[in-house]
Amino acid sequence: MLKAAEKRTEAPERFLFGPGPTNVDPRVYKAMAQPIVGMRDPFFFDCMAEVQTGLRSVFGTGNAVTFPVPGTGSSGMETAIANFVTPGMKTVIFANGLFADRQTEIAKRHGAQVVRFEKDWGEVFSADEAETFLERERPQVVAFVQAETSTGAFQQAKAITTPAKKIGAITIADCVTSLGAMPVEVDSNDIDVAYSCSQKGLSCPPGLSPITVSPRAWEWLQKRESIDTWYLDLRLLTKWWDAPHVYHHTPPTTLIYAIREALAVIEEEGLKSRWERHHRAHERLVTGLGRLGFEPFVSNPENRIWHLVTARVPSGVNEAELRTRLMEKYGIDMAAGIGKLSGQILRIGIMGPLATDEKIDFLLDAISSSM
Amino acid sequence: MLKAAEKRTEAPERFLFGPGPTNVDPRVYKAMAQPIVGMRDPFFFDCMAEVQTGLRSVFGTGNAVTFPVPGTGSSGMETAIANFVTPGMKTVIFANGLFADRQTEIAKRHGAQVVRFEKDWGEVFSADEAETFLERERPQVVAFVQAETSTGAFQQAKAITTPAKKIGAITIADCVTSLGAMPVEVDSNDIDVAYSCSQKGLSCPPGLSPITVSPRAWEWLQKRESIDTWYLDLRLLTKWWDAPHVYHHTPPTTLIYAIREALAVIEEEGLKSRWERHHRAHERLVTGLGRLGFEPFVSNPENRIWHLVTARVPSGVNEAELRTRLMEKYGIDMAAGIGKLSGQILRIGIMGPLATDEKIDFLLDAISSSM
Repeated sequence: MLKAAEKRTEAPERFLFGPGPTNVDPRVYKAMAQPIVGMRDPFFFDCMAEVQTGLRSVFGTGNAVTFPVPGTGSSGMETAIANFVTPGMKTVIFANGLFADRQTEIAKRHGAQVVRFEKDWGEVFSADEAETFLERERPQVVAFVQAETSTGAFQQAKAITTPAKKIGAITIADCVTSLGAMPVEVDSNDIDVAYSCSQKGLSCPPGLSPITVSPRAWEWLQKRESIDTWYLDLRLLTKWWDAPHVYHHTPPTTLIYAIREALAVIEEEGLKSRWERHHRAHERLVTGLGRLGFEPFVSNPENRIWHLVTARVPSGVNEAELRTRLMEKYGIDMAAGIGKLSGQILRIGIMGPLATDEKIDFLLDAISSSM
Repeated sequence: MLKAAEKRTEAPERFLFGPGPTNVDPRVYKAMAQPIVGMRDPFFFDCMAEVQTGLRSVFGTGNAVTFPVPGTGSSGMETAIANFVTPGMKTVIFANGLFADRQTEIAKRHGAQVVRFEKDWGEVFSADEAETFLERERPQVVAFVQAETSTGAFQQAKAITTPAKKIGAITIADCVTSLGAMPVEVDSNDIDVAYSCSQKGLSCPPGLSPITVSPRAWEWLQKRESIDTWYLDLRLLTKWWDAPHVYHHTPPTTLIYAIREALAVIEEEGLKSRWERHHRAHERLVTGLGRLGFEPFVSNPENRIWHLVTARVPSGVNEAELRTRLMEKYGIDMAAGIGKLSGQILRIGIMGPLATDEKIDFLLDAISSSM
């Protein structure tokens, strides 16, 4: 007998101070519970158009090809790589964390000849370093992670895209953690292909992966002969998103309602005000953590993701026990380090509804009384 | 300015008499609007376990590997094929509709050597025909569609799986439209790999693709060296679904809540009662349509999907105009033929909350007054 048959699904209220999913505006829950309509309903086509407009705004792009892939953030990563990497193609990956490793793994599965520029986790790449490496390797595709969720490091996109453009390479940027909470700026950063997720900076439920493609990359894709995925084929997905909406898959209706509403929430606040709010929350949290003896994992403040703070716990404090106490006493969900950083750092997300003075102070008090 | 910023997302109420998405029980909407929790929250792991139990029940299987793939129904199709078809592998596809064509396309993209057994759309395959073909071709993989959404035809699985088993081939069944509304019976039908969707027979929002894998097929997969997709890699997905839940993607929390509740709704009704309800609704609709001059597209009643009725419109009636009138006057969303059958048939879904005497009579009255 399913428990849900005896008792309806009732989830506990949590404070999601992890790297995502994050807490969601009540408006978004309400939108998601709106009645489902058919996939060719004029109302639904209208929602789709709104989602595209809203995504162009948060991505900072005029790219026509901009929409959510029907899967979680990692489906966007696979979409970007599967479409723009052909078997044997030389692909440079700037590797400084778990998600660059994932890019590597996916690129290899699609037959790429991968060359990695490796740095320690938490480090970022300078314009000079990137230029020297790319001039020497001269790849056709370059992939990097703008906001590395495993380390908390933020990579300046231009440092990589400028030399990549010089050698004519297509650039793929992982913006899974950055979108909606700090500047991604696809166009002014000369990014060709950017993908993200719904459940971090956009404060929407997980399940969608926004993607955007520059006209230059799109033109390249038109000439590609075959591609080894059907579900994530961007040319087919685009035909569904654009009129006359050629059938490809049945869209996840309620998630489209949800992201439409989440994008409207962002527009009402104003994108720049939202960025600034996350920046203020970041500084308040880092200062507060410093008082409690937590050292930032990313040493240079300029290279830090604002809304995902990574910190080493003070000596004598067990990070796993701290997280358990926070969950038990306060319902605070916080993330541990992953991969190489397992057991070494905390990853504290302060996204959307949690990026306020009040919530940061609540979190700091909770940490302080749980150490 | 996004319209949703001025006015909240408010969807119109529709009667979804198409092939899906279908109308959803209010309990499912309520579950979906429950607070999001972290992906390692004990409550969420509990939900995941419930979903696996519920899916095994509707699939009619004891398969350990049973869970929803984080994408729509077509992602399940690609998952099944990408995992069980290796480049160069001989793959027989029983082709009698659009979704068998899609299986063909996906198998080719993954490098299969495809041999198609073709029949007219709306036809099904007999045990003798299947055996003769398979004995001659001796493929390693056999794919077919149990409930063909484009034609309304239902294929008896055993007719194909019995001869396939004899030659040692792995069988892949598309159960996208059958699951939850009529018997799929994976185990007693000897199906190795079955995939489905959330938005048809399960009456849940779209966005998930339940899949199940037999121990025999799973054993085969363990020996496979590499696979050309990462997002849809079943071995990685299974490691996330099973304890200790190795991180792969961020799960679509709210859709997992939704399918958990939808499965509980089914359990409360009883799976067999639910099948019978859909069968009764089918007979009432076909009889009523007959009175109005609509001829069933699938001639043999035994080969018809119960909850997706396909019918030719009477001469003199324009099917597109009929659908427009039904939508405008009653908010009824009904589907046209697709592919080869475009303009020739109506596809009328009577799933979940719509498979009742009352709703069928409402639909028949609406059609009658709109002709």
